[in-house]
Order: sequence, then C-alpha cells, then structure tokens
Amino acid sequence: MVRPLTLHPHRALPADPAVRAIAVRILEQTAPLPLICMHGHVEAEAFARDTPFADPAQLLIVPDHYVTRMLASQGIDLADLGVPRTDGGAVETDSRTIWRRFCENWHLYRGTPSRYWLEHELVEVFGVDEAPSADSADRLYDRIAETVADPAFRPQQLLDRFGIEIISTTDPASSDLSHHASLAEQGLGERVVPTFRPDAALMIGRDGWAQEVEALGAAAGEEISDLAGLLDALRIQRRRFVAAGARATDHGHLSAAAAPMDEAAAAALVASALAGTVPTPEEAAAFEAHMLLQMAAMSCEDGLVMQLHPGVLRDHASGILARHGRDKGYDIPVATEYTRSLRPLLERFGHDPRFHLVLFTVDETVFSREIAPLAGAYPSVRYGAPWWFLDSPDGMRRFREAATETAGFYNSSGFVDDTRAFASIPARHDLARRIDAGYLARLVAEHRLEEDEATQTAIDLVTTIPRAAYPPLAR
Amino acid sequence: MVRPLTLHPHRALPADPAVRAIAVRILEQTAPLPLICMHGHVEAEAFARDTPFADPAQLLIVPDHYVTRMLASQGIDLADLGVPRTDGGAVETDSRTIWRRFCENWHLYRGTPSRYWLEHELVEVFGVDEAPSADSADRLYDRIAETVADPAFRPQQLLDRFGIEIISTTDPASSDLSHHASLAEQGLGERVVPTFRPDAALMIGRDGWAQEVEALGAAAGEEISDLAGLLDALRIQRRRFVAAGARATDHGHLSAAAAPMDEAAAAALVASALAGTVPTPEEAAAFEAHMLLQMAAMSCEDGLVMQLHPGVLRDHASGILARHGRDKGYDIPVATEYTRSLRPLLERFGHDPRFHLVLFTVDETVFSREIAPLAGAYPSVRYGAPWWFLDSPDGMRRFREAATETAGFYNSSGFVDDTRAFASIPARHDLARRIDAGYLARLVAEHRLEEDEATQTAIDLVTTIPRAAYPPLAR
Amino acid sequence: MVRPLTLHPHRALPADPAVRAIAVRILEQTAPLPLICMHGHVEAEAFARDTPFADPAQLLIVPDHYVTRMLASQGIDLADLGVPRTDGGAVETDSRTIWRRFCENWHLYRGTPSRYWLEHELVEVFGVDEAPSADSADRLYDRIAETVADPAFRPQQLLDRFGIEIISTTDPASSDLSHHASLAEQGLGERVVPTFRPDAALMIGRDGWAQEVEALGAAAGEEISDLAGLLDALRIQRRRFVAAGARATDHGHLSAAAAPMDEAAAAALVASALAGTVPTPEEAAAFEAHMLLQMAAMSCEDGLVMQLHPGVLRDHASGILARHGRDKGYDIPVATEYTRSLRPLLERFGHDPRFHLVLFTVDETVFSREIAPLAGAYPSVRYGAPWWFLDSPDGMRRFREAATETAGFYNSSGFVDDTRAFASIPARHDLARRIDAGYLARLVAEHRLEEDEATQTAIDLVTTIPRAAYPPLAR
Repeated sequence: MVRPLTLHPHRALPADPAVRAIAVRILEQTAPLPLICMHGHVEAEAFARDTPFADPAQLLIVPDHYVTRMLASQGIDLADLGVPRTDGGAVETDSRTIWRRFCENWHLYRGTPSRYWLEHELVEVFGVDEAPSADSADRLYDRIAETVADPAFRPQQLLDRFGIEIISTTDPASSDLSHHASLAEQGLGERVVPTFRPDAALMIGRDGWAQEVEALGAAAGEEISDLAGLLDALRIQRRRFVAAGARATDHGHLSAAAAPMDEAAAAALVASALAGTVPTPEEAAAFEAHMLLQMAAMSCEDGLVMQLHPGVLRDHASGILARHGRDKGYDIPVATEYTRSLRPLLERFGHDPRFHLVLFTVDETVFSREIAPLAGAYPSVRYGAPWWFLDSPDGMRRFREAATETAGFYNSSGFVDDTRAFASIPARHDLARRIDAGYLARLVAEHRLEEDEATQTAIDLVTTIPRAAYPPLAR
Repeated sequence: MVRPLTLHPHRALPADPAVRAIAVRILEQTAPLPLICMHGHVEAEAFARDTPFADPAQLLIVPDHYVTRMLASQGIDLADLGVPRTDGGAVETDSRTIWRRFCENWHLYRGTPSRYWLEHELVEVFGVDEAPSADSADRLYDRIAETVADPAFRPQQLLDRFGIEIISTTDPASSDLSHHASLAEQGLGERVVPTFRPDAALMIGRDGWAQEVEALGAAAGEEISDLAGLLDALRIQRRRFVAAGARATDHGHLSAAAAPMDEAAAAALVASALAGTVPTPEEAAAFEAHMLLQMAAMSCEDGLVMQLHPGVLRDHASGILARHGRDKGYDIPVATEYTRSLRPLLERFGHDPRFHLVLFTVDETVFSREIAPLAGAYPSVRYGAPWWFLDSPDGMRRFREAATETAGFYNSSGFVDDTRAFASIPARHDLARRIDAGYLARLVAEHRLEEDEATQTAIDLVTTIPRAAYPPLAR
Repeated sequence: MVRPLTLHPHRALPADPAVRAIAVRILEQTAPLPLICMHGHVEAEAFARDTPFADPAQLLIVPDHYVTRMLASQGIDLADLGVPRTDGGAVETDSRTIWRRFCENWHLYRGTPSRYWLEHELVEVFGVDEAPSADSADRLYDRIAETVADPAFRPQQLLDRFGIEIISTTDPASSDLSHHASLAEQGLGERVVPTFRPDAALMIGRDGWAQEVEALGAAAGEEISDLAGLLDALRIQRRRFVAAGARATDHGHLSAAAAPMDEAAAAALVASALAGTVPTPEEAAAFEAHMLLQMAAMSCEDGLVMQLHPGVLRDHASGILARHGRDKGYDIPVATEYTRSLRPLLERFGHDPRFHLVLFTVDETVFSREIAPLAGAYPSVRYGAPWWFLDSPDGMRRFREAATETAGFYNSSGFVDDTRAFASIPARHDLARRIDAGYLARLVAEHRLEEDEATQTAIDLVTTIPRAAYPPLAR
C-alpha cells in the first residue's frame, strides 16, 4: 500500500480560519526571502571540499542524534543504527538495514519536529512522494540515493538552491581555518563564515583540555605555558576568526555563571592543570565563569557577538559516551539561572556599545522570568531563538508568547537554526516562519497589531533583525 | 428554581469548529474502549468485600481531599465537613448537613477539574439531572442515596459497568495481600492487582518508620534487625506482590534523588534508627536516595515497573496533620529536579532491558526541560501522565504540548487516573481521552499529522501504550 | 501620511468567532462596572493637591520605566529621554525632543502591553486619533498637551471620569499621612486610601536603613533605639494607617522567606546596625524573614491584609542605579520559592481567621506549582493577579489557565493594577476584563461552564472578590 507524502501549504499555521488567512498572507511575504544562518554546525570542510553526500542512512539517520535517540528510546541499540563505536567495534554497516529500521518506526516521530523536518526534506529536497514505512523503505532509499548522486546535490550548489544568504560554521578555537581559507579562494568567504567556539580550551576540568590548549597554542603560533599565554592565544585566534569573516563566538558552558576569580588563583590553577593536576569541579566551574568574563572583555575589543547556550548537562549516560562518544542524544537540560549569574558580566559590559550578547536557553521558564527582562533593558542583550528541544512548533509558539510581551520583537536574534543536518536547514527556517506568521496573525486577529505592522515585523525577523544581531566586522 | 445538569457531548473539546469535528471523530473511536487503571488508590478491601457505598456525603465529600480543601480554603472547618479528628473529637455527623454545605458552595468549583468530574459522576453514575445548589441539595441527596442503595451499585458490579479492564490498588510493602487473595478466589485476581508502595519502610526519618519495618518483617516472615534484613524483607514482599499480580511499585519521596550511600554508613544508620535514634533530615534524605537505588536494582530482578512521584511536600500545615491526619489537601508541590537526581540510577540501570521507570511530576516546568528529554533517550524511561494538580483540562493540554515534541507519544505511560474516588474513574478517563482527542485534532488541523495516524495514536494511548508500560509478569 | 489610531471593540478578545461572541456578551456586563484599585503606586500628593499633569513627555515617557527601558534596550541613553541624573547632571529637557524619540520608536512596542495601554490612553483619555510616528509626533504632542491643560483633566476629576470606586496609594511606613489627612478633609478619605509599605525599615542591609528607621521613629513619635522600639513604631504607624483608611500592607522582599530568628540575635543585630555596623547579606536576609513574620503577627492584630511581592532582584545594573536611581527598568526577576519559604508563617497564622495574605509573583512557574495549591487550601491565602512583566494579554491568560484549575476563581484577589501611571489605570482594568472574558468564554464554549455562571464569575472578579480580598477595617 502506498501512503502518499505531501506538504500541505497551510501546515503549522493556526487552525482558526480567520487567523490562518492572515498568517497565509504574512507567510507569502517571508517564505521567498533568503536564509540567514548565523549559527549552525555544518562542517566547513563539507563546503570547502564540496563533498558529495553519503547514502540515505549516513545522510539522514546515523549522524542525527534527534533521530537516533528516538529509536534508542524504544530499545534499538545505537550500534544497530550504524552509530560508530569509539573502540572501533562492529556496528551495523548495511545502510539499507539502518534505513529500514528507521522507516519501520516512523510512527515514533508523530508530533515531533523531527517528523516535520524530515517530511519537508523528503518532499522538497529529495522528491519523495510516499511516507516512510516498512513497505516503502526500499523505494525511498533508492529515490534518495538517486538524488544524492546527482552532481547538483553538492553542498555548494545547495547554498543557492536553499537560498542561503550567509551560513556560519562552528569551529574550535584551535582551528587553523584552512577550510575557510579555501572557501575564500573559491569566492565563498563572505557566504560561509566561521564561529569561534573556545569551550574545549576553557573547560579546564574536562578530559582533553591540555591537548586542546596545546592545539590552540600551535594554531596561534606560540606555546601556552600559563594563563597569560592562554589569553594571548585566544586573542590571536579570535583576530584570525574575524579576519576569516567570523561575526560571533559560541559558548556552551553548563552554567551561565560569569564571575571573576582572583587573577593569581586563576593563574595558579592553569599552571597546576598544565602540570597535570585535575582541578576540582568547583575550581573548574570558577575558572569557566572567569573565562566567560574574559571572553566578554575580548568581545568588546574585537566586536565578536557573544552567544551563550548554557544549561545542558552533556553525556548524561557515561556508558553511551564511552561506547559511542559525544552528541548522541544524551544531553539533558537542567534548570538554569541567568539573572544573578550574568550580573557581574553585565555590570562590566552590559552598557558597553561595543558589546553584544545573545542568550539562548533550553529552560523555557526563563523566557518570561529572566531573559526577556534582561533583553528588554540592557542595550547589549538580545534573546536568542528557541533552541534544541524548544525549536519545535509549540515550543516556538510558547517562546513568542513568553518573551515578546516583555522584550518586544526587536531585541531578539531572529531565527537561529543551530543544525548539523544541512538538508534540514530550509525545513527549520520554513517552520520558524510559519510559527511567527501564526503568532503575528493572532495578534492581528485579536486587534493587538495592524496587519501591515505584523507583516513588516515578520520580514524584519528574517532580514534586518538577524543582520543587526550579527553585524559584519571590519576584517 | 431547578437548574438542569447535563453533559454536553462536546465538553472539553476544542472550541474551533474544524478542530472539534476532527476531535469528535477521534473520540468516537476511543470513548468505547475499556479502562486500564494501572495506578490508583481505591482500597483492595472495597473490591474484596464488595462493600456497599456509603451515603452521598461519605461517598463524595468527606474522603475527597480535592473537594474538602476547596471548602476549607474559603473558611469552612474540616470538622464541619465531617472529616474525622485524630483525637476522636466531635465532627459533623449529619451527612445531609455536610452535603448541603457542599451544594451551597458549588460555585467555588467553577473552572476546576473537581467540578468536571463531579458533574460527570452525578449525571452518568448517579442519574442526577439538576445542578447542586442550596435549593437542590436535598433532592440530590435523595437521588444519590437511592442509587447507592441499589445492589447493582457495588464495587464489583461497577468494574463491569465502568468498563474497567484492569485496576491496580496501592498497598504498603507490609501488606499481607489478604484482600487480593480473596479477590483471586473470587476470580478477580487478574482484574484487581496490587502495587508495591514501600515509602513508609524507606522514610527512616518519619514517625512510624520502626513500626512499619516491624510490620514488614512480620509480613515477610522474618524479624528485621539490620539493613540486610530490611532489604531481604522488601525482596520477599516484592515477590509476593508479583505472585499476587502486581506489575509496579510506587514511590512518593519528596525528592527524585537516587544515589548510593556508603554501605556501612547505611547499615549503621538503620541499626541506629532501629535502636530509637532519630536520624537527621540529611541522613534520612541520603537513606531514601540510597533505598530508591536499591528499589531500582530489585526492579531489574523481579520486573516490577518503578513509578516515581516526587516533589510534594506533605502535610504543609502540621496543625491539620495533628488534628485530621494525612491527605487532607495540604500537600504542596515544590520545584523538583530530575536530571541530576536520577543520573546515578540511570547510569546503573537506564539501559538494562529488565528495567522500567515511569516519571511523574507536579512541577510542570520539567516536562519539556527534563522528563521528556530523559524519556526520549533512555529506553527504560517513560513519562507519566500529568498528575494531581495537573490532571485537569488545561494541565493535560499543556502536558501534551510540552512533552510530545521531544519524547513523542510512544515513550509515555498512557493515562493514569491516580484516584481514591472510585466513582470518578470513568470521568477521569473520559476527560483525558477528550483532551488527547483535542490535542491530536489540532495536530491534524495544522497538517502536522494525518487523521488516521491521529486516531491510531489516540487508540494506542489507551490500549497498547499502557499495556506496554505495565507489562504482566510471570507469577 | 496619517496612520489612524482607533480601538477595536473586540481587541484582546479570542479570535475564534464563537468564543468571541460569548466573550463580548460577558464583557458587556463587566466593562461598565467601577474600578477597584486596591494596589497602586500613584502618589497620594497628586490626589491631595489635585496637581495638574505635566507635558506629554513628563506625563507618559519620563516616569514610566516600562516605556524608557524599552528605548534604552535599543541603545537610547536614559539621559536622552529626560530621566533625571542623581548627580544633577544634564539630561534632555526638551519635552518635544523626548516625545519625538519615543514616537520614532513606536515599532519597538509591538506585541507589548505598553503598546496596548498607551493606545488605550491616547485614544480614550487624550482623544488622539493617529498612531505615533516621526511624522505624527508633534501633532500628538500638541493634542495631548491641550487635553492635559484642561481643568477637567485633574487627578480628582479623573477619579470620576475613570469610574474609580476606590484607589490605594503606597506609602512608606514612616509616612506622616498628611496627604491622606488632606484628602479626608476634602471628602476623599474613603476613596483614596494608603497602603503600609515597611520594606525600607525592614531591609537592614540596605543603604538608608538607619535613616528610614529614624524617620519611622519620628513619625511614630518615639525614638527607636532597639528592636522593641522598631516593632513598637511599626505597630503605632500601622494603627495610624488603619485610621487613615488603609486596608493592606505591601512587602517587596527579594525572597518569600518568613522564618523566626532567635529573638536575642535579632535584637543584637538591630543594636549593631543602629551603631553603624553593616550586617552580612545572610544576616540581613534572616532579619527580613524574621520581620516578615512579625508583620504577619501584626496583621492578625490590626487586620491589615498582607501583600507579598517577592522575587525581583532590584537594580541589577548598579551603574544605572548610581546614575539615575531606582525603578529604571533594571529590576530583574529570579526563580522564587513559596512552599517552604512561607511554611513557618502559615504554620503560625495560616488558619487564623484574622489573617489575610495575598501572594504575587513574577515567576509564573509557581502559579500551578505553589501559589494555587496554597491558595486552594489555606483559608487565609489568596492568589494575586499577574504582576509586572506578567500583567499582559498572554501573561494573564497563562495565569488564569495555570491557577484556576487548582484554586478556582474565588480564592483570588481580583485584578490589581499596580501602576504609577495614573492615566493607564482604565487601560489596565479594561485589558484584564477582556482577558478574563476571553478565558471564561472559552470555558463556556468548551462546555466546562454555563454562560450565566461565567458572567456572574466575571462580575464577581471585579466586584465582590476584590472587596472581600481587601475588606474595610474599623477605623
């Protein structure tokens, strides 16, 4: 039995006919606009080498932890989905088998944004016209494999096809930015830009910190033997990122704490850690908070917008971490505090006209309580788009309802897709535009906003607002 | 003046006509299905003895803390509602007077689920056709009293009339399960099953712990003189519960913490407590966390599904506790943490295929932040139905909206009525089915789900999902 | 280009036509009813002296931190908005310039309640008929200036025009209440009443505490040299407030903690602080908690309703505090705990029939989790209207949805406008009535309430409920 798969033009718009009609009119204005993707995790290498995409399973299932965790949550072993083992042990290698396991469990995704994005990709990007199921699995596999084999389906070609005005990758502080150099040579240096992500060099208590510091020193061209050296190397690399087109940094600490340590204590801790002593969790947390403050100070110097994504306890299941590595769906949010945590940082830099801070959260309780009040007062602060678990139809709706009344629309970052899955980028922007159109349409229907204002706001949310949130820097 | 009381067929469905039409079609499929009641607090004795119900006040008012606390919140003394005093002091004994006090204050329940359930019971179960009021109180009393006197209105008969496929009672770890033995003799052993509730034996800091431990030892057939004995007795009783048809345990600790104590320290604490020393609150909390971990270990052995209901500060008003005892409406929720608290437990058992954990909460902030991400990753974890204060039309709607996008439908427990009020069980399931139909209908109307998928999901939510969440064990 | 500004009769009502029709019928019953304003911050002096209002900028922009913070959040300096500097330094003094800056940035308020209130004021109070913009700024300025110059536009006249039945000011514990004496002489003593606000005298760790204590002593007519003296003076002033018509106290501590200190330690702390020693933050917090308990005890004695507004970290940006003083939009909420914090207070006074406590919050997570369960059990507790950042269309809707199902309608305070901006009072009550009408209409449309009950509830919410929440005291 063939179950057709189509995309309804009114999907994810409000059900009420009067509200929907307004939303459709707003969406007609925003749907054709280009995509500004100032925060994402597609690898620079993919663009630089214009690497052809892999088979359907390696493209859509194996690397997408949203997709694999849902199957894992119902008892399917990650190894049976082809997720590589850190010890090189055997995992499923037959991509058709992996794809079939996914298609057979399509019902698990009902009501989730993964389903929404995947449907969009299947239809719009891969030309699929029937729904995944045990029966259709092989037909879909063949259809997608055929599309992927098409030379027109290369990353650089898709930049045009997807209408991407600019896209940012995420790169470790120690990156030599060679892929971005290559992109510049290919004339894509303005369109694919790096983002400076120094977490691994700042998380002094985490495995691999010393190696990352060494790599950072190597990249910066000077050996790091103390805190001053670490700060110098970070500063040097930030300048290189700016020269390569970077507009922002990204910080994924567990907490939003940003507070100074005693300078001498911080220096001593670095010396001790470089000598091989593992700091206590309290020391490590204090150092991270200290370094976040240093990063803010450097943002004032070089203009890189500071993006903060706190509140996720990474690798909750250490067995999965040991067996399969990071980013496997076992990153679980915790309640996160912003008001007190960010005060030392905002006392110093919150009114500095050179400073820009975008706050993200996976704890939706802080939208109305902390983030919107901060963004609605401090000129340096913007509230970021709903992130990760909240980047979903109802999550985005709740975000708009909770944040807008206090901070308005113009203190926001605009939409941020935050995705590793390149083929899902149009789907994510499409969904965000639909939810915003629906929210704005409700304001119009409730006579809280005129329709022309709503339309202008919707356009601003995908054009002037993200451009203002991430301004280009003099290179 | 007679004010008619009827149940509208479209009650608690979305107001939007297009969404409602879909919801009605979905509900038509689920409304006739039997009730699976895997978590409740009706006394086993009531079924075993098939006890006739008391008069209207003793049936519907006095034992229902949802109903009495609302009247108390407006200044009516619990004693004037017939709630017994622990000292045996005088309370109102005239059931007509109690019933009248309730009826006169019917307006207090506007907008509450108690009103919704009571209306359903009055009309569907008792055949009442006018609304409670000072004027109608006596007529309603007579009508209900007449119904209750009918031999067809006995608990065992109502199992059939209500369409209850299976119902679980809640029984202390020390129970001799004699009522369940009697039920088995009467051929109801598969239909009315016990649930193992060991809280009183684990809460080492609470009054009555030593007595409960003694009772547990007596039930298990061995004197408990140390921690090893306590664990043995718990294990023995769990096996008895399994033999009597139990499928689950239930745990109502204040915190979700589950973390190991040093074994020797735990043993010393038990020895000291058995000798009459009251542990400090910190010691008691550490011991509860330790024992929760032991309970999870035992669940791996015997297969009992572990149900966790944390986050309620019991007996907030100690004066009410002293005068009227527990469960009088003064149990108040607190913010509750799951991500870090459950990590030690999930590190050990989270991927054990024998382990099943259902997480409930009265802190709705954790649905999107903690519980859905955990249930959407760990194969052992399901998210429980909205509980207590959240088991209400808008509470259930918010629950679906917050949890589904991250964890899908199939990582949930299905509906859990959690009620002491037997006559309200159909009302509670009916309401849950309506809210689910409404939520699913909205997904359909917004083109996020096909209608046949939505209907299948609604059916699964009341059949295959709760059956899978609470699988029968080999006895 | 002239952009007309009108108020749609159905603004802020639900979009669904069937629900809206019901809401319109409910609103028709409540819209004409007088305003009961039991909690506000208009200065008593303005009523007593019947002071003419200032020019448009000084009336609507400069003193309204909702309005100025939004402009500041986009980089406009508060000084350029005419907000006075504490050092007397130069700020913008040209009111037309200030007004123009506001009008040019009108788009920033889209989706905010400030926009909603301002539109209402502009049209209903000032007769403006075009929207603010760079182009219209001067015309609007002239129109408003003309209205304000009208003798009919004096505070006392507006009491009638706005339909204000009673309005409460907020007055420091040290107030001599001379303006209220003057009001009484003018025959307005029943209509404009004081509220006792002792924060400054209780916050022992804050700058200016000693001066406030001195002022309190002076007002009470006895020098305060110790804790007993402080308590005596508070008691004396509370009686004066009662005599002047006060019905309530108001407390804006950071935390809701109310717990006893050791009496001797409290006395020693006061002695030490009076001698000039600054207490530690922990000591100060303990003392505040102790004094909150004393305030509750005094409420039992004198009948003043206790209003608690915790959870706001004041003056987050100390630079703004230093330059422009308090209440400039940099007060940011924090997560706030009520269940445990209030337990000592409720254990003592929660069932005292003389005690009344109204709980407010800016942390909306506590509505369903803590405040509604407390208000739905303790006879002394009512839940307050949504406050500050939550006094907005969607904030109020979420509040109704989160609190009503547990606590019903009749355990609430009714609407509390909490405003300094006198001209916005009708707008705020109008909006609240619309949101309540919409919420109640949805209950009717979903057959959860009969329409006549909904209408009666809406009327009660603005008449009998606030009157019962703030009963008049024998003077």
